[in-house]
Amino acid sequence: MKTVRLAITGFGNVGKRVAHLVEERQRYLSSRGVRLIITGVCSSRRGMIDPDGISPSKLQDSEAYDPELTGSRFIQQVPADVLIEAGPSDYETGQPGLDYIHSALSRGLHVVAISKGALVVDGPAIIQAACNAGSQLCMSGAAASALPTIDFLTYDLAGTRIKAMEAILTGTTTFILDTMLAHGLSFQEALSEAQRHGIAEPDPSFDIDGWDTAAKVTIISNAVFGADLDITDLPRKSLREISAEALRDWQSQGLTPRLVGYIENNDTGFQAGVDLRLYPQSHPFSLTKGSSKGMSVKTVEMGEFNLIGGASDPTATAAAAMKDLNHIISAL
Amino acid sequence: MKTVRLAITGFGNVGKRVAHLVEERQRYLSSRGVRLIITGVCSSRRGMIDPDGISPSKLQDSEAYDPELTGSRFIQQVPADVLIEAGPSDYETGQPGLDYIHSALSRGLHVVAISKGALVVDGPAIIQAACNAGSQLCMSGAAASALPTIDFLTYDLAGTRIKAMEAILTGTTTFILDTMLAHGLSFQEALSEAQRHGIAEPDPSFDIDGWDTAAKVTIISNAVFGADLDITDLPRKSLREISAEALRDWQSQGLTPRLVGYIENNDTGFQAGVDLRLYPQSHPFSLTKGSSKGMSVKTVEMGEFNLIGGASDPTATAAAAMKDLNHIISAL
Repeated sequence: MKTVRLAITGFGNVGKRVAHLVEERQRYLSSRGVRLIITGVCSSRRGMIDPDGISPSKLQDSEAYDPELTGSRFIQQVPADVLIEAGPSDYETGQPGLDYIHSALSRGLHVVAISKGALVVDGPAIIQAACNAGSQLCMSGAAASALPTIDFLTYDLAGTRIKAMEAILTGTTTFILDTMLAHGLSFQEALSEAQRHGIAEPDPSFDIDGWDTAAKVTIISNAVFGADLDITDLPRKSLREISAEALRDWQSQGLTPRLVGYIENNDTGFQAGVDLRLYPQSHPFSLTKGSSKGMSVKTVEMGEFNLIGGASDPTATAAAAMKDLNHIISAL
Repeated sequence: MKTVRLAITGFGNVGKRVAHLVEERQRYLSSRGVRLIITGVCSSRRGMIDPDGISPSKLQDSEAYDPELTGSRFIQQVPADVLIEAGPSDYETGQPGLDYIHSALSRGLHVVAISKGALVVDGPAIIQAACNAGSQLCMSGAAASALPTIDFLTYDLAGTRIKAMEAILTGTTTFILDTMLAHGLSFQEALSEAQRHGIAEPDPSFDIDGWDTAAKVTIISNAVFGADLDITDLPRKSLREISAEALRDWQSQGLTPRLVGYIENNDTGFQAGVDLRLYPQSHPFSLTKGSSKGMSVKTVEMGEFNLIGGASDPTATAAAAMKDLNHIISAL
């Protein structure tokens, strides 16, 4: 039986779901000869370390946490083979994930990144650091979670030349666009509706101004195509630009608008950005509903693919991280 | 630089495309530290072996082939690390692929199966033999080729519980159904049309009676779910059963018929088969056209996915085999 020790930084909604899935998958993992234990978790305010593994009940015991055990103290001390970084994303500094990830890699840990901040701010350097350390670095949770963007492009299409990709990466924007279309609402009205349903954040600009999509496109570009993109380089469109009149026109022509991230990779070079594009009813993107995502890929040898779906909730994101963990364990 | 030696059994349309892609990818592979050489190829009538690698021009030189170098003589003598089995599929005996694959595995070679016969006839034993030998066994080319069925289910969704899967695995059936629908033709008329376009075989029963779909479902069930299915156990539907009247009824209701392979994997057990199912316009399968394929997957943790597309030609199939080869090389 091989023991794999797991540290989790960021212990909010998603981090806790990861811990739950770790527990739930014990029997399956042990049938594959793996004993997976959580040796440490920390949030921004406190942490806990136990080299023998922390039980689910102890993880829920707030008395068992040490307010000193966070930040660099935690990441330097935790005895672990894999770090799962599930903290909040700061797109200016990349912190706190940036320090956690670099410290973990410098200690030779493998890393599963769920938060996007560090990868957006410092992706190429993180990828290089992982390469130098001989560490595996996976980031499904940061690149559309359940929708397997990076895995599909690098594994399912391994060795195939990818000419272009476009993807619906921010479910909130689909909800707002469809609400405008279905009820003839203005952008502001549809946004309020999305906020009322808890789908859009109180400060919605990150989603509706295309930053969330741009972050994911940046991460995918750097990870899959070896690009060295800075998120601020990407051309970007915002839902705010859409008039009710334009929407009615598109609708009358049977066209469905979607905010998409795109990558073009051809003889003239590499380009990426965020665009508002129109899809006819014959395109699978016109079938995306609610907060479901989608990806369309054009290849040289294998033709074109369209993938839509994938849940957008903390369990799905945690399951994407568990998938990454599975891949890391398989390669150990 | 790591040298990987490749043997190809079955050197028809697809096998030759594989050799072409090997040549085309040399620069990319060598940038990853791999020198890939073809040390042997054979068809049912002749073969060639060169431990130093066979050049593209020599592969095309019919004088260079030895009529003695095929069958067990070839597979025992060829110095190789990986076998690509690209011969014809016999669904009764599994030959000639069955002997090639078992011989290769017993010699410790890794195997990429493109032909389906051996996997349908003896899949579980082949999987066990690969496991015993510590060999990698990949079969994308045999399980819908460019459409990444096995990779998606086992890698993109690793660790996620799959409740159900249904898939359009035989493009010919989609062409015939759509031709019936579009022009109000009978099954026989649409079949003739497909044969005229070279889409359906002169003996079309393998496709239209669901055997091709059943073969792929059998392969996927055994590889992904560890099932021990025999193709003859699968319930099966045939396009012959469809009346023009039924088709008109479905059309008037906005329903698109598709011949699909299905897998149900839940508390009540594992079931697989081939069925004729109806899809509303809101389902991505209603958008599949020509010979494109599709797969719909329901999971516990990650929600539902729909994947459609993938070219259906010898280059796409060869590219799927090259992808498998990439995975094998990455894990060497």
